[in-house]
Amino acid sequence: MEISFIGAGNLAWHLAPALENAGHHINEVFSRQLQHSRQLVSNLFDAHTHSDLNFADSPSRLFILAVSDDALENVCSRLVLPEDAILVHTSGGQSLQLLEQWMAIYSDVPVHTGVFYALQTFTKGLSFMAFDEIPLCLEASDKETEELLVQMGQNISDIVYLITSEERQALHVAAVLACNFTNHLLTLARELTIRDDLEFDLLRPIIAETFRKGLAASNPADVQTGPARRGDLTTIENHLAFLADQPKLAELYQVMSDSIRHHYGK
Amino acid sequence: MEISFIGAGNLAWHLAPALENAGHHINEVFSRQLQHSRQLVSNLFDAHTHSDLNFADSPSRLFILAVSDDALENVCSRLVLPEDAILVHTSGGQSLQLLEQWMAIYSDVPVHTGVFYALQTFTKGLSFMAFDEIPLCLEASDKETEELLVQMGQNISDIVYLITSEERQALHVAAVLACNFTNHLLTLARELTIRDDLEFDLLRPIIAETFRKGLAASNPADVQTGPARRGDLTTIENHLAFLADQPKLAELYQVMSDSIRHHYGK
Repeated sequence: MEISFIGAGNLAWHLAPALENAGHHINEVFSRQLQHSRQLVSNLFDAHTHSDLNFADSPSRLFILAVSDDALENVCSRLVLPEDAILVHTSGGQSLQLLEQWMAIYSDVPVHTGVFYALQTFTKGLSFMAFDEIPLCLEASDKETEELLVQMGQNISDIVYLITSEERQALHVAAVLACNFTNHLLTLARELTIRDDLEFDLLRPIIAETFRKGLAASNPADVQTGPARRGDLTTIENHLAFLADQPKLAELYQVMSDSIRHHYGK
Repeated sequence: MEISFIGAGNLAWHLAPALENAGHHINEVFSRQLQHSRQLVSNLFDAHTHSDLNFADSPSRLFILAVSDDALENVCSRLVLPEDAILVHTSGGQSLQLLEQWMAIYSDVPVHTGVFYALQTFTKGLSFMAFDEIPLCLEASDKETEELLVQMGQNISDIVYLITSEERQALHVAAVLACNFTNHLLTLARELTIRDDLEFDLLRPIIAETFRKGLAASNPADVQTGPARRGDLTTIENHLAFLADQPKLAELYQVMSDSIRHHYGK
């Protein structure tokens, strides 16, 4: 597949080399920040930086939008694609329908559309992530595009799913809970220890063991512990009193504890 | 040290063998459920089950309370200890002062008191946890007891801290946030996927990678991602709309997102 990347951030950094290693050909990389596209191109075989969003003369068939959700519509409105192009976005939170609508409005030629969502968190780094264990959630505007995306997905990953935009939304909300919110709880826990001149390192072993247990369980509910799980209202009251001078954190503690108590009928 | 355990639950299951391996001697194990004390005793050299809370004739010096917080006062009120005994609890959430007060009320003889809090989550299992990497948070009513507990702690762990009850409270609240609440978020994420007939396994790679990054960072805030971190209000609104039929979960989503936005000024 002849491919161009629009966006040279964390995802493109890992996905472009993975596609090349699977035998695909990256022609062009566009980024608002030329330095980013230059960096990415330097890791690819013979891709070039592309300085604008006019791809009318591009040799590529597949155009991969790897930009932030906020930038998607703006990019689509300025994008010029060749005949018979396939345009996919890589977002967990945006529907396929929206992309179809935008291209119906903004594009002079008909465009095949799709979603190529890699359910993983990416950070630019020295090494490239192996994609074979990363779930790919695919969706397409038509059967031919779907088959092309599935084939390309299977070239790089063992876990390829056809997922509707609604299902992808559920996965995205679930990932926000299980990933973004959990990481923020680590931040809040760290601040509590630091405030009392304690070392966050004291908590690392119990956090590591909790994560290990939670992921090893077929259902994390089986290994839930703590005062809310036990319905230990005395400890919950003590903790809320301890947090009295941080009302926002106390509210968060209350809401999470209520959710646990409700879940286990305590 | 000659030791008796009061309680034969998850902590005692791991701590008693660890103390034996370090050369200490477990004489007796009491549990309300005889089956539990029998199980634990079967893993120890020559300990016996003890059928009541009268330890007046016990050869032990140290008595380790390894019971749930809720049961602590009731157990203390019925406990009969020999002269010059040391009584420690193993709870993250209870103060040393409370134990001192209870024993002043309930015990006929003066008792040295202390706290021997292992900052880890324990589950009975086939193998025993190595204690050398588990932080021990110790506290004692007097200098001699403190020295004995520190020495015993250092026999089994490389990470021994003298921690006040207030500091232990901060650690305990932080551990509830970073461990109990995070595990519950995994449960909630699993339910969202199952509700849409999706497999929770799809989320395991991104959760594992998030945890890896969060624990590898010196500050988890450095690797925070997601719509709230970006201040992406459109996605947050979409997610809240998606959760409209689950008001409690929507409230939790809102409170967590607000906390993240507030933290990063978004």
